[in-house]
Amino acid sequence: MKNNYCVIMAGGIGSRFWPASRNNRPKQFLDFFGTGHSLLQMTVDRFRPLVPIENVLIVTNVLYKDLILEQIPDLKPEQVLCEPARRNTAPCIAYAIAHIKGMVRQRTGLGEEVSWDDDRLNANIVVSPSDHLILHENQFRKTIRTSFAFVEKHDSLLTLGMKPSRPETGYGYIQLSNQTINMVDSDIYKVRAFTEKPNRELAEVFLKSGEFLWNSGIFIWNLRTIRHAFAEFLPEVVDKFMPGEKLMGTAEEEAYIQDKFPSCPNISIDYGILEKSKNVYVLPSDFGWSDLGTWGSLYELSEKDEQGNATLKCHATYYDSHNNMVTLPEGHLAVVKGLDDYIVAEADDVLLICPKGEEQQIREFVTDAEIDYKGRYN
Amino acid sequence: MKNNYCVIMAGGIGSRFWPASRNNRPKQFLDFFGTGHSLLQMTVDRFRPLVPIENVLIVTNVLYKDLILEQIPDLKPEQVLCEPARRNTAPCIAYAIAHIKGMVRQRTGLGEEVSWDDDRLNANIVVSPSDHLILHENQFRKTIRTSFAFVEKHDSLLTLGMKPSRPETGYGYIQLSNQTINMVDSDIYKVRAFTEKPNRELAEVFLKSGEFLWNSGIFIWNLRTIRHAFAEFLPEVVDKFMPGEKLMGTAEEEAYIQDKFPSCPNISIDYGILEKSKNVYVLPSDFGWSDLGTWGSLYELSEKDEQGNATLKCHATYYDSHNNMVTLPEGHLAVVKGLDDYIVAEADDVLLICPKGEEQQIREFVTDAEIDYKGRYN
Repeated sequence: MKNNYCVIMAGGIGSRFWPASRNNRPKQFLDFFGTGHSLLQMTVDRFRPLVPIENVLIVTNVLYKDLILEQIPDLKPEQVLCEPARRNTAPCIAYAIAHIKGMVRQRTGLGEEVSWDDDRLNANIVVSPSDHLILHENQFRKTIRTSFAFVEKHDSLLTLGMKPSRPETGYGYIQLSNQTINMVDSDIYKVRAFTEKPNRELAEVFLKSGEFLWNSGIFIWNLRTIRHAFAEFLPEVVDKFMPGEKLMGTAEEEAYIQDKFPSCPNISIDYGILEKSKNVYVLPSDFGWSDLGTWGSLYELSEKDEQGNATLKCHATYYDSHNNMVTLPEGHLAVVKGLDDYIVAEADDVLLICPKGEEQQIREFVTDAEIDYKGRYN
Repeated sequence: MKNNYCVIMAGGIGSRFWPASRNNRPKQFLDFFGTGHSLLQMTVDRFRPLVPIENVLIVTNVLYKDLILEQIPDLKPEQVLCEPARRNTAPCIAYAIAHIKGMVRQRTGLGEEVSWDDDRLNANIVVSPSDHLILHENQFRKTIRTSFAFVEKHDSLLTLGMKPSRPETGYGYIQLSNQTINMVDSDIYKVRAFTEKPNRELAEVFLKSGEFLWNSGIFIWNLRTIRHAFAEFLPEVVDKFMPGEKLMGTAEEEAYIQDKFPSCPNISIDYGILEKSKNVYVLPSDFGWSDLGTWGSLYELSEKDEQGNATLKCHATYYDSHNNMVTLPEGHLAVVKGLDDYIVAEADDVLLICPKGEEQQIREFVTDAEIDYKGRYN
């Protein structure tokens, strides 16, 4: 376990959960379910039995560093890596692996000239979003253990693919090939292709075929393997970090990153590496996953009363009302009469009332509020 | 002006404006329009140019005494009369006139044996609800001055009748006779009949006839005149107060009222006296009056945007939404999409969403909340 590392990406500023999410309090920091734990806290806790806490890194914007250290008090400040600019997931991961190399070197007393291929640099890394929901923690742990065992033995990139339960058009899909490797009691499939979010018709074909899995954005690989992939597919990113590798973990790391990171290309790990590599595998998984992308997806996951109303965090009394999603600050009461299929979401000083089917317009609401009220409610 | 007195009835516990109104904060104490003044404060201020502040009495429940003294800091505690039980308007007014007799006696040095008919007891009294809205203050003042001049000269009971602007079914009506008395530039009509709240059809007949006015619940009379009317029509109420008249304004007043008031019959001044007396006049008035009986009536009075949405106290942005009435705590923002003809009202920790046409059910909501949440939100 001491060779296991975890990189949690927590730099998102998603506006789809406005007004619950705000510029200074994005989705990953929210306690959606009123459990007293934010999505980020739940994510970190999920990895505790799998990765030593000192091997957990959180990559984020400097704006959120204090909030993260407050939410995860046993994290040291140097475990929060700050991106000076938003450059999507590939530069984020490149930075994290450079930093992990530095950590391993310092712990093992290896010099800065050590090769990425040196066995003593061995590190298994899981990369995870910070703002997803996972319901079945035991199954999740089992899956991650199998994944670590796989990348320990195989120089391959592994991704977790979720067994689809519906023709979801909001997710990317991964197509399986026939080529499999058996690990413990799981078959791990070589990936045939990654696909973009499909339309409804195509999503139904995907679901029916049994050949497609949802792309969860959770990746597992060995330090050496992902570094080779970067060198092969994104050499322009490697060029940015290579000269600074020896500075990782020193007082000069921050200044180096401040200087070089913003000039990285804006590119996702999926597009930059996974879709191009012939060495990507997927472990079909089923641990009650959701990316919690919208209020609607939160509604789908929430417990509902007999009229299909989901009430999160607050009390609510419904009269002639069906299939609503209501969330107010804790301890508040909603009395709702004659309303069907709405989101009613209040946080701090903003109340949103919007039909569930039209929530893609939330971004427009957020932009309008930004302009009309000079950011006061953003 | 020093003979002018004002009795403001502020004992109501109306639940029709829940959740804005609560048990400990009924409608009259609310600042509905975000002006920084409660309806009670506006009522008191309206009378300041007409009645010396030391001649203003507020009759209420002891629960609200402190709140009243807080809202009207230049009122002395002895100007707030506390009813030990709710007994409708007739006992409330009987108590107030007994107290006013005591005030006048003390100020003029008259003995307790002085007759109600003694000219030195002369006092003109306006009786007013505390929770109505009046838009045109100048017109109101003119009307009250005319009324005082009328009751100074005529031993009659005077009521203000509002010129109806729509076939309202929520108000009682007053039918005019042909008999008039001219005062300054107003004709004051003898009342032919008081009527209960009519159905829609009848309300339309009333409106069309031009013979009917809305009953505002604002009355003006001389101390002596109303006391005679009580003696004639409600002797059982007079019996309760007469033995204690000499105690009014002394340390024993409160104990006496505590003892006797609860045994008064529960009866309104309209039913107990005005409908029975042949000596009732009405001054047709038009000063932008509303009893603010429901959220709907507040909507009617409020400024609306081009889509018919009325926003009270808060900010609101509407998308595909029409004819809604939205009020949140000051400084909050509502974003409303795809909603027509609703009340959205939030106060403290309760949010109500209800079609405007179904707001008579608010009483049911209040009762349900009382039971379900043990009064926590009432």
